[in-house]
Amino acid sequence: MNTGINAAAIIGGGVIGGGWVARFLLMGIDVNVYDPDPQAERKITEVLNNARRSLPDLYEHRLPVEGTLVFSDSIEAAVANVDWVSECVPERLELKQKVLNEVQLHCSSSTIVSSSTSGFKPSELQQGSTRPEQIIVAHPFNPVYLIPLVELVGDAETTQNAKQILSKLGCFPLVVRKEIDAHIADRLLEAVWREGLWLVKDGIATTQEIDDAISYGFGLRWAQMGLFETYRIAGGEAGMAHFIKQFGPALEWPWTKLMDVPELSDSLVQTIADQSDAHSGKHSIRELERIRDDNLVAMMRSLKATNWGAGELLNTMDKQLSADAHEAGSYLTTINRTIPSSWTDYNGHMNDSRYSEVFSVASDEVMQSIGANADYIEGGMSYFTVDMHITYNQECHHGDAITVATRIANGQGKKLKLEHAMRNEQGELLASCDQLLIHVDLEARKSCLPLEAVAIELSKLADQHQSLGKPY
Amino acid sequence: MNTGINAAAIIGGGVIGGGWVARFLLMGIDVNVYDPDPQAERKITEVLNNARRSLPDLYEHRLPVEGTLVFSDSIEAAVANVDWVSECVPERLELKQKVLNEVQLHCSSSTIVSSSTSGFKPSELQQGSTRPEQIIVAHPFNPVYLIPLVELVGDAETTQNAKQILSKLGCFPLVVRKEIDAHIADRLLEAVWREGLWLVKDGIATTQEIDDAISYGFGLRWAQMGLFETYRIAGGEAGMAHFIKQFGPALEWPWTKLMDVPELSDSLVQTIADQSDAHSGKHSIRELERIRDDNLVAMMRSLKATNWGAGELLNTMDKQLSADAHEAGSYLTTINRTIPSSWTDYNGHMNDSRYSEVFSVASDEVMQSIGANADYIEGGMSYFTVDMHITYNQECHHGDAITVATRIANGQGKKLKLEHAMRNEQGELLASCDQLLIHVDLEARKSCLPLEAVAIELSKLADQHQSLGKPY
Repeated sequence: MNTGINAAAIIGGGVIGGGWVARFLLMGIDVNVYDPDPQAERKITEVLNNARRSLPDLYEHRLPVEGTLVFSDSIEAAVANVDWVSECVPERLELKQKVLNEVQLHCSSSTIVSSSTSGFKPSELQQGSTRPEQIIVAHPFNPVYLIPLVELVGDAETTQNAKQILSKLGCFPLVVRKEIDAHIADRLLEAVWREGLWLVKDGIATTQEIDDAISYGFGLRWAQMGLFETYRIAGGEAGMAHFIKQFGPALEWPWTKLMDVPELSDSLVQTIADQSDAHSGKHSIRELERIRDDNLVAMMRSLKATNWGAGELLNTMDKQLSADAHEAGSYLTTINRTIPSSWTDYNGHMNDSRYSEVFSVASDEVMQSIGANADYIEGGMSYFTVDMHITYNQECHHGDAITVATRIANGQGKKLKLEHAMRNEQGELLASCDQLLIHVDLEARKSCLPLEAVAIELSKLADQHQSLGKPY
Repeated sequence: MNTGINAAAIIGGGVIGGGWVARFLLMGIDVNVYDPDPQAERKITEVLNNARRSLPDLYEHRLPVEGTLVFSDSIEAAVANVDWVSECVPERLELKQKVLNEVQLHCSSSTIVSSSTSGFKPSELQQGSTRPEQIIVAHPFNPVYLIPLVELVGDAETTQNAKQILSKLGCFPLVVRKEIDAHIADRLLEAVWREGLWLVKDGIATTQEIDDAISYGFGLRWAQMGLFETYRIAGGEAGMAHFIKQFGPALEWPWTKLMDVPELSDSLVQTIADQSDAHSGKHSIRELERIRDDNLVAMMRSLKATNWGAGELLNTMDKQLSADAHEAGSYLTTINRTIPSSWTDYNGHMNDSRYSEVFSVASDEVMQSIGANADYIEGGMSYFTVDMHITYNQECHHGDAITVATRIANGQGKKLKLEHAMRNEQGELLASCDQLLIHVDLEARKSCLPLEAVAIELSKLADQHQSLGKPY
């Protein structure tokens, strides 16, 4: 996988900085970190460990070998030879300006220098800079290693370059075309936060009740369609303009207290802290992070099947990761991946049915490699499984790397007989599978001979595999 | 399944009314609809068809037989003998008061009379009523047949009764303890909507860019944890109070324009409609509805594995639906369900690996029925699959009802040999499976004999099944 960059520097190693470190490192990019806090290494390691257990779960292919992490002694040392810099220091304008100035003194003029600021505009960050166009905003969202969105604001060319790099890392870079305080997402978040504080202060709802109103309600909608697309549907066939005209007047009703800011008195702060303890206090922050990450991974993975939103993004990344899986003259390497958390069952290991899922995907890979691909299927031909026999040799667990070697044992006529061997990184056999598929006409839903191009490719591979013997 | 009620009446058959109809009907409850609109039957049928293709997908068990749908000629006829009334007429207070008054004239005093209003308070709806405590708000969210949240506002006893009924229908009823304009969720939504309109009006972002900022960003977070729990994590070990004090000051920065209402000029309305067309216009409203429903189902299903939020709710409902699946003296009925959309693959039928998933769950059911349940596993004993052989006889598709009959072919010693037959509603064999499991000590990860209670139950069942022969 070529991400187009070799090294990145992260200045400031808190939750956001640590998240950037993880995103780059796990995609195979070397990372230098500068943070004078003596706790920085411990904090970053914690974020990294969370990322290592969840980010690989998003994909059906193995990630590149991790980059090298270096803790630098100075900004100068950190940024000297990198393609990307993320500034992640606390949200104080003078501090950010000082750090960005120091970064520009020592980095190449071709380096992308980004700030993770949630509030400041590029023009503010660039004050006093001799190369202002080099400084952009690249604002990520926690957890940075999972949430795809990164808001990019600043010079058109620099943000386009940044967009290309981040896309290859699996992010969803959104170029904000006009600079504005707090960009886009945080303006929306701020509105909800302000209203939420009023609801708590006025005793209308507890923090848990507000959270429940979100995550059993419009939160589910917004994870896959935003505000406007949701309302487009609500408007129905009458159309969006009709809907707005109907809904519009409510805006002028005195529903919200958004015009006023609730005083953050000690007593309101305490009320919120107490309610939050009552709601979430049974889990430690570490546990909550893992629950959140497992939920996010599971939901994003579930959108792969509908190829929508975050799921479409994961499918694109999977294609990027899948290159060069096959070697000539040996078995086909049909699977090279790690085991996601959601595949674990009550026995604490990969569920028996997931073995069959892996072998099913392995047979899809075989179909790809003989030209029975999406176009072929679109044309009305495919293979159906008629028999599958799995022998389970050994347990495997969340995070384990597995490969499947597949032999074409018979490729004559309508038949495609496959022998799959699933192994772990130590080369130990985890399971074997004999699978028989039959070529079918999708219109008639009946068996038939494959088209010539596929038949030729298939027999070529089957001949190569003839002498190899079973892979298990 | 006993939902505690027999019949419901829905007054007003638009998108919300139709959604209520679907929720009740598909859970086995008879529904009377009153709506003078001659298009009402067509509109409700469209919502119902959407619900029929997606609501059953949420669960691993079959839903009850659908209730009977009757279109009534009057409010009087609709509400005469029902346990629940949902008023879903347009959002005009006088109209709602008039309808609710008419409802109360003809319904029993024990009927729950609810309004789906998104804005009005119960005290407003109750004006002029002689039984005000009977009228509550039960505010659902579109699509009503999938989104769990229903906000309940009003008399404490009536809302508690409503909560019990809705819980059994798979909803997440949230009792709002103090009445307030727009309850909880719509106050938050209103805030975002208002800010979103400003962003479009000021040319900062298009409707698509705002939607992307939501659904690739905080929308994913909010589908599984709300605002406060998310910020609790962001605050880390320093705690919630610390986080608020840090974050608080931003509230007073002049970030939002929320204090002003943008004028909904024709030109702004047109801008939004045009941008929405550019973003979503390639799909019809019907297509968007189905995409949305498939996404929601997939995400909520994915949260079953983490047993969190909407996923925990589905698991609870699954337990409610699973009662009495077994019959003595015959094969075990281990599966009785419909096939969810996400199980379909590129061949347009249930993916081969999902057969194995069904049989895996079938063996879990066998374990349940011999006492090798969650407690037994917690105690350190379980069964592992060591061999699975599936023969695929026939295709099956989204929405098809399937059953699995399971025979215990051998239950001696450490062995548990199962024979599964999967059939469709016509009784045709879809697939058969021979599965061998071995009893294990989960600590040692080695085979061992089952505990006596399980061994006895197992051999009792195995004896009963001895004379039955293979189920396929």
